Amino acid sequence: MVAQRPSFVVLGGGGFIGTNLCRQLAASGYRVRAFGRRRLFPDDLPGVEWCQGDFTDAGAVAAAIQSSDIIFHLIHATMPQAANLDIAADVQNNVVPSIALLELCRELAVKRVVFVSSGGTVYGCPQQIPTPETATTQPICAYGISKLTIEKYLALYQHLYSLDYRVLRITNAFGPFQIALKNQGVVAALIARALNGEPIEIWGDGSVVRDFVFVDDVADALGKAALGDHGGQRIFNIGSGRGHSLREVIAAIETLLGRRLKIEWKPRRSIDVPVSVVAIDRARECLDWVPKTSFEAGLQKTIEWGRQRRFDIERLFP
Amino acid sequence: MVAQRPSFVVLGGGGFIGTNLCRQLAASGYRVRAFGRRRLFPDDLPGVEWCQGDFTDAGAVAAAIQSSDIIFHLIHATMPQAANLDIAADVQNNVVPSIALLELCRELAVKRVVFVSSGGTVYGCPQQIPTPETATTQPICAYGISKLTIEKYLALYQHLYSLDYRVLRITNAFGPFQIALKNQGVVAALIARALNGEPIEIWGDGSVVRDFVFVDDVADALGKAALGDHGGQRIFNIGSGRGHSLREVIAAIETLLGRRLKIEWKPRRSIDVPVSVVAIDRARECLDWVPKTSFEAGLQKTIEWGRQRRFDIERLFP
Repeated sequence: MVAQRPSFVVLGGGGFIGTNLCRQLAASGYRVRAFGRRRLFPDDLPGVEWCQGDFTDAGAVAAAIQSSDIIFHLIHATMPQAANLDIAADVQNNVVPSIALLELCRELAVKRVVFVSSGGTVYGCPQQIPTPETATTQPICAYGISKLTIEKYLALYQHLYSLDYRVLRITNAFGPFQIALKNQGVVAALIARALNGEPIEIWGDGSVVRDFVFVDDVADALGKAALGDHGGQRIFNIGSGRGHSLREVIAAIETLLGRRLKIEWKPRRSIDVPVSVVAIDRARECLDWVPKTSFEAGLQKTIEWGRQRRFDIERLFP
Repeated sequence: MVAQRPSFVVLGGGGFIGTNLCRQLAASGYRVRAFGRRRLFPDDLPGVEWCQGDFTDAGAVAAAIQSSDIIFHLIHATMPQAANLDIAADVQNNVVPSIALLELCRELAVKRVVFVSSGGTVYGCPQQIPTPETATTQPICAYGISKLTIEKYLALYQHLYSLDYRVLRITNAFGPFQIALKNQGVVAALIARALNGEPIEIWGDGSVVRDFVFVDDVADALGKAALGDHGGQRIFNIGSGRGHSLREVIAAIETLLGRRLKIEWKPRRSIDVPVSVVAIDRARECLDWVPKTSFEAGLQKTIEWGRQRRFDIERLFP
């Protein structure tokens, strides 16, 4: 007799991390359903069932998660910068439907919710680098507050209704299937512009330090978070544990490409913390996870993918 | 030349703490406007301008706070227990309009927002007793999460727009003008039922320990939080710093009244943490505040007020 394998739903399965996660789960032979407003790369999700819908549509979400064991919650309807511009809308579009999701998961007896939180924003300006999960959480952007608030509701549903959960506070993920739009994904943006010979706008003087983690390693961490008891820990930083300044990122890409990037420097944004690097000891110890791809190897893979795909942004977003 | 005295608006000025605060501010000669759905004791707010309105009505809130310097935010539309029953509604009715309030305060150049948070729920099950402001905040009820979330948005508006704020994490306040309804205010409920010779339901076995603080001291702390720089601190626990079990509260009231209370014991609720006592060192040092009324003296004053007013609940809530 063989134990039945769990079935997965990836909310936000059509996005950057979601596409990578769905591909990795499907390649491992799991039954995977993806839900979202759209797939960035519809042809690259073979064997993945697709459910089109809006996260604020409770009926669509219910239909998507029905009869599944593990729910990955990767949806955030607002970009970090945009969240600050309409903070109430950020709450309406992310916190409120996340509560509705938890209510559904409770009713449908879902086994676990794995939530993608933000290692770069929930801590705010960290007092300790690398920052452990136990550090003070004082976000300086609305995006970080709504991520943190959803974490709190996950803990509440666990407390009140024994709905199991994991939170992965992911830092700056990069890699294939990231799109270079909407002011996110600086690595994708840099590589795409470089390959197209276009200039790129960078906010600040390039001294900000971020923790870049390759998306294969992120998908690996999500898979590990779905199963197992993890020594009772539920919240994990997922990053490389090492910082790279934006200038270092630019230099590394220039070295790999053998050409200079055209940068247009812009004023610093108030939501940018100077340094964000997370401690990943807990993930190493309890999740049995370490990032396997070096920064340079990840950049090289991303460049190769970009060369094949040409980062054809216009085609993706007509 | 005399510096102009600041003008105050008390959102929730018709409620228990609000009534006490308005009375104290007006008695000190300040210009005070109170805003809320209703006044529990309309005859007891002489010299206080009253603005009737709902907190979710942005126009009404804007009219109330216009041309005022300091805004006290005491409104929470949901009781702790009810918040868990409809968590999304708790967010809609409290977090979302609080964001709208901050947006208004920013537009109207309000000098400071003083927010009443919850010392008994934002920490969850505290790992340290008495609990300092620096402790982990892991609420185990929706009420605590929305209070904490509003705290985070206050910090965000300070960071983004330099809107000054103070947060008072108040424990179990008791005293005159508290009403013994809606499962809140156990001291008022006990005294009211005792004076009326009625039985009272108590959840749990009476072993839960709470930090009871007399409402005059709370109003005093709010007044102090409105002015001054407080050594750069913005978040303060306001309590007695000492714990009393519910059984001790019952015994103390029985001693003061010289009669036995009729208790109907009910099962424990999952939102009740076993012990909640806050450390008040920061308020002592930076707010120049200490609670002046002993627990017994506070109970005595509350009983005297109750005897005069007869806690006529039916008349208050027809």
